[in-house]
Amino acid sequence: MTAEVDRSEAASSGSRFPIPAEPGVAEATSVPVVDAPPETQPVSWRHRHLLDVDALTRPELELVMGTTDAMREVLARPIPKVPALRGTNVTILFYEASTRTRVSFEVAAKNLSADVVNIAAASSSVSKGESLVDTVRTIEALGADMLVMRHPVSGSPYLAAEIFGGAVLNGGDGWHAHPSQALLDLYTLRSRLPGGSLDGRKVVILGDSLHSRVARSNIWTLTAMGADLWICGPSTLLRGFEGWAARGAAGRRFTVTSDVDAALRDADVVMALRIQKGRMASGLLPSLREYAARYGLTQERLRNANPDVVVMHPGPMNEGVEIAADVAVDPRSVITEQVTNGVAVRMALLYLLAGARAGEKQERGA
Amino acid sequence: MTAEVDRSEAASSGSRFPIPAEPGVAEATSVPVVDAPPETQPVSWRHRHLLDVDALTRPELELVMGTTDAMREVLARPIPKVPALRGTNVTILFYEASTRTRVSFEVAAKNLSADVVNIAAASSSVSKGESLVDTVRTIEALGADMLVMRHPVSGSPYLAAEIFGGAVLNGGDGWHAHPSQALLDLYTLRSRLPGGSLDGRKVVILGDSLHSRVARSNIWTLTAMGADLWICGPSTLLRGFEGWAARGAAGRRFTVTSDVDAALRDADVVMALRIQKGRMASGLLPSLREYAARYGLTQERLRNANPDVVVMHPGPMNEGVEIAADVAVDPRSVITEQVTNGVAVRMALLYLLAGARAGEKQERGA
Amino acid sequence: MTAEVDRSEAASSGSRFPIPAEPGVAEATSVPVVDAPPETQPVSWRHRHLLDVDALTRPELELVMGTTDAMREVLARPIPKVPALRGTNVTILFYEASTRTRVSFEVAAKNLSADVVNIAAASSSVSKGESLVDTVRTIEALGADMLVMRHPVSGSPYLAAEIFGGAVLNGGDGWHAHPSQALLDLYTLRSRLPGGSLDGRKVVILGDSLHSRVARSNIWTLTAMGADLWICGPSTLLRGFEGWAARGAAGRRFTVTSDVDAALRDADVVMALRIQKGRMASGLLPSLREYAARYGLTQERLRNANPDVVVMHPGPMNEGVEIAADVAVDPRSVITEQVTNGVAVRMALLYLLAGARAGEKQERGA
Repeated sequence: MTAEVDRSEAASSGSRFPIPAEPGVAEATSVPVVDAPPETQPVSWRHRHLLDVDALTRPELELVMGTTDAMREVLARPIPKVPALRGTNVTILFYEASTRTRVSFEVAAKNLSADVVNIAAASSSVSKGESLVDTVRTIEALGADMLVMRHPVSGSPYLAAEIFGGAVLNGGDGWHAHPSQALLDLYTLRSRLPGGSLDGRKVVILGDSLHSRVARSNIWTLTAMGADLWICGPSTLLRGFEGWAARGAAGRRFTVTSDVDAALRDADVVMALRIQKGRMASGLLPSLREYAARYGLTQERLRNANPDVVVMHPGPMNEGVEIAADVAVDPRSVITEQVTNGVAVRMALLYLLAGARAGEKQERGA
Repeated sequence: MTAEVDRSEAASSGSRFPIPAEPGVAEATSVPVVDAPPETQPVSWRHRHLLDVDALTRPELELVMGTTDAMREVLARPIPKVPALRGTNVTILFYEASTRTRVSFEVAAKNLSADVVNIAAASSSVSKGESLVDTVRTIEALGADMLVMRHPVSGSPYLAAEIFGGAVLNGGDGWHAHPSQALLDLYTLRSRLPGGSLDGRKVVILGDSLHSRVARSNIWTLTAMGADLWICGPSTLLRGFEGWAARGAAGRRFTVTSDVDAALRDADVVMALRIQKGRMASGLLPSLREYAARYGLTQERLRNANPDVVVMHPGPMNEGVEIAADVAVDPRSVITEQVTNGVAVRMALLYLLAGARAGEKQERGA
Repeated sequence: MTAEVDRSEAASSGSRFPIPAEPGVAEATSVPVVDAPPETQPVSWRHRHLLDVDALTRPELELVMGTTDAMREVLARPIPKVPALRGTNVTILFYEASTRTRVSFEVAAKNLSADVVNIAAASSSVSKGESLVDTVRTIEALGADMLVMRHPVSGSPYLAAEIFGGAVLNGGDGWHAHPSQALLDLYTLRSRLPGGSLDGRKVVILGDSLHSRVARSNIWTLTAMGADLWICGPSTLLRGFEGWAARGAAGRRFTVTSDVDAALRDADVVMALRIQKGRMASGLLPSLREYAARYGLTQERLRNANPDVVVMHPGPMNEGVEIAADVAVDPRSVITEQVTNGVAVRMALLYLLAGARAGEKQERGA
C-alpha cells in the first residue's frame, strides 16, 4: 500500500503509453511478439504475484493496459490463440461460486495455450477440512506454475503467495480485493472516455462498498489515474470509507456521501455494485425494494449525470434492484464490454506474470 | 413448427441421400472434407441454431444423417480428431445434472478440436440468481461461439437464441424438446433397419410421454421419416397427445393408446422411456412395481413384436422398472449404439452449425 | 492375490532394474522412447487394468519404477509434455470428493497429450440412480479408452473392469485398495532410502489402518519389496490385520501392534494415516485429542526412530491430529515429494496400460 504515483510525468504526456524509457512496452504491445514465448520478452514487469492493485505504479498500470491492447488484437483473429504459455499449468482454485471470473481466467489461459486445471472447493478435499497452506503446497507439487484463486477470507492469497513457488493471481478475496476486475474496469473506461484519460473525470461507485472487493480495488486504480472519485451508498454500507478518504492513503483522495443526487450530478462514470441479498439479514440494509427506490440506478437518476455518462456493473446483476433493466442495456452501458475486456486483461496479466517468473528463474540459474 | 415435408420426393428415392441437387452433401459426407475448416465447406445447412427438430425438413434430416456418416468414419480412426472447429469456443451450460448428453457434446466438440468450457449451474453465479438473459450475454462476451444448454424451463433455449450472437444448441429444455437425442435415435434406427428406411415401420414410444422431451422431439423426426408411430403408456401420462395426434400437426399423424399389447403387436421398434421416480408424488403414476407389471418392457411382452424388433432407451435406465435387465442387454437392444452414435451426431451438428455461422459472417462481411 | 515373488533374483541384483532379460524395460526408461506412441513400444507390461497392487510381481513393480524415472525426466523439461497418448480419451469418474488424486491423474493424462473428461458423481446422472454397470457401459460408448475411477464401495472397479472394453485404473475403492498411491509411496521411498532398497528396512504404517485403502495397498508393495513392515494404531482400528499378518498371505509377513513406542523404535520410515473425523461416531476411536496424544506423530515420538527416518502421509492431513505441524514440514518429511511423484507414477501407469492395450488390439487384429 505504498505505491508512489508520479502524476506529473503521466499528466504531461499526451500519449497513451507515457513510458518511453521502458524498452519492453512497445514490443509487448505489438502483436507478433505475443506469439513468442514470454521467456524471450524484455518486459519490464517486476511483480511475481497479482494480489491487489495497490502495489502497481502508474507506469505499471500503463504496461498492463498496453499489453491488453495486444491481447485484444489476438482476440480479434479468426483463431484467437497464441502459444505464449504452452506447457504452463494454470490451476484455478475457487472457494466461492463464480461464472464470469472463473471462465474468464480459463478462456484467457487457454487462449495463451496454457493447460488449465479447475478445482472447485465444494467437490475437492478442501471440503475435508485441509488447510489452505496444505492445499497450496499440494497444488504446486501437482505441477501448477500459476495459481488463480478466489477465497472468502480477506488476505488469503497473501498467505498462498508466501508458500506457492509460482505466481498467485487473486481472483477475489473476501471484501478485500479483486485486482483483475479493477484492471478490466480501468481498461474499459480508458477505451470509452474521450482521449482515454481519467484525469479529473467524476467517477461514482454506487452501492454496497462496505462488502465490496470490487470497490476497494477500484479505489486504488481510479485514484492512481487521477479520477475525481465518489463513493456513494446508504451510510451503513460506507463504514470506514470516510476515514480512508480523509487519510488520503498514498496520496489518493476521494469523496464519500450518501447523497445520490449530489454524487450523480455531472458524473462521467457510474459503477453500480451488486447488492448481496444475504445482507438483509445483517440489518445493514433496508428491504431490496427500499434500496432500489433510494439508490437504484434508474434512467431518471441518470438524467443528473453527464449526457455521455458511462454505466458499469461488475455483474452478476440484480436487475430492478441496484440497476434498472433499461439502464443495463442502455447504449451508454459498457457492462458486456467489461466482460470481453476481462478476458483480454487476464491474458495480459497471465502473460506478464509468466514473463516475470521466467526472468526470475533465469536470474536464479545465472 | 411450419416445416413442409415433401414426402413424394423422398419416398420415390431409394438412395440414402435423396438430395442430388445439393452440392454440399456428397462432399460433407466424404471424410477428407471434414478435415478442412467449415469456412471452406459449401454445405447447404441454413439454420443458425438447433432448438428443436420440428423446423427440419426431410432433406435437412438427410444432410444431418450423411454428415454423421462422415463423423463415424472420423471416430473409427486411430486418432479420432479433425481440426474443423479449431479456435472455436463451445460453452456447455447445464442447469440440470447429466452425464451422457453433457459428456457427449464435450467429446464431440473436442474431436473437432474446439475449446470447451463447462459451466454447471449449481456451482456458478447462476446460483446467485442471475437471469438467463444476463448469463447468456455474459457467456457470449467471454468468447463463446457456440452454446450448448440444458434448462428445466421449456422454451428457454429460444430465449437464449434471441440474445446469443452465435449458435445455440438445445441439450434438453423442460418437457419440450431434446433435438440431438431425436437425431441420434433416427441415425441409430436407419443403421439398423433393413434398407435404412423408416417408411411404414411401426415404432412404439412406451412410457411417460407426458414429461418427456425425448418423446416430443422423436414424434417430429419419426413422422417426418414416414414411420407408423404409436405413443403408449398409462392414460394419465398421455394427456394432450391424443389432441396432438388428431390435429396431425404439419401433416404428422400418430396413434395414441394405453393398450400395450396392441401397441407392441408386430412392432419394428420399441423405445422405452425413463420413469422419473419423482413422478410418483404427483399422483399421475401408480407405484413403480405396478408400472413395471403393466407397462415394463419385458421379454414376454416383446414376443408380441416383430422378431427383429429394435429396442431403444435414451438412458439413464431404471432397470426392472420401464425395461427389464435382460431386455436392456438383448442382442436386439441398440442402447449402447445410441450413445456412440450420439457423439457422431453431435459432431455433425456442431460442424453444420459452425458452417452456417461462417457463411452468415461472410455474407455480412460482403 | 496370487502374485509369485521371486525374491532371490531381485535380492541378488544390486542394480535398480534387475530385469535384464526384458527387452522393453531399458527402452521404456530412456526418455526419447516415451515421445513415441505406445503402439511402437516393446513394453513387457501384461496387465490390462490396474485394480490393486496384489497382482504385481516384483519385476513388474520394477518396470513401473523405471518407467516413472523416465516420466520424471519428462516433467523436468521446460514443456513437460509428450505425445504418447494423443487421441486417447481418459475419463475420470469420481464418486467421492478428491483434489490430489483426481488432479494428479488429470495432469498426468494431459502431460501425455490425452483428452481428459471429468465426471463428478454428484453432478451427473449417477445421482439419478443409474447403476454402475450402465454408467460404465455409457462411458465406454461415449469414447473412453481408459477409465480412472474412485468409488466408495470396495471392489467396484473389478465390476467395472468386467464390463469396460478399455483399461480401468482404480483411483481408490472403499477401504480396499489405492494402487497408484502405494506405487507413488514406493517410488518416493526408493528415491530417498540409501541404495534405493527397502530390503530389511523397518517401515511403520501408523493410524487407522482398518478404514484405509492406502494401508491395504501399501502392505502388498512394501512386503513385496522386502520391507520389515509394522502396522500400528489403536487396537479397535487394527481389526483383522493380526489374522492377515499371521496367515502371511502370498508369503508376505508383517507385525501388528498397538505399542507406538515399539513400532517407532529404529524405524526407517513412518507413514501416518489420515484420521477421518467421521469415525468418532462409530465408537471405534476416542476423541481426536486423545488420539493425537496417544498416536499422533510428534517430534518427541520421532526421536525413537532412526535419525534419518523418512516421514510420509498420503494427505490430506489433519495437522495436530495424526501428525504434528512441525513434523509435516520437517526436512525428513517427503509429503510434498509424494504428490509430485504421484504425477510421474500415474503417467507411467497410463503409459504402460495404453501399451498393453495396443498390444492386445494388435493380437486380436492379427
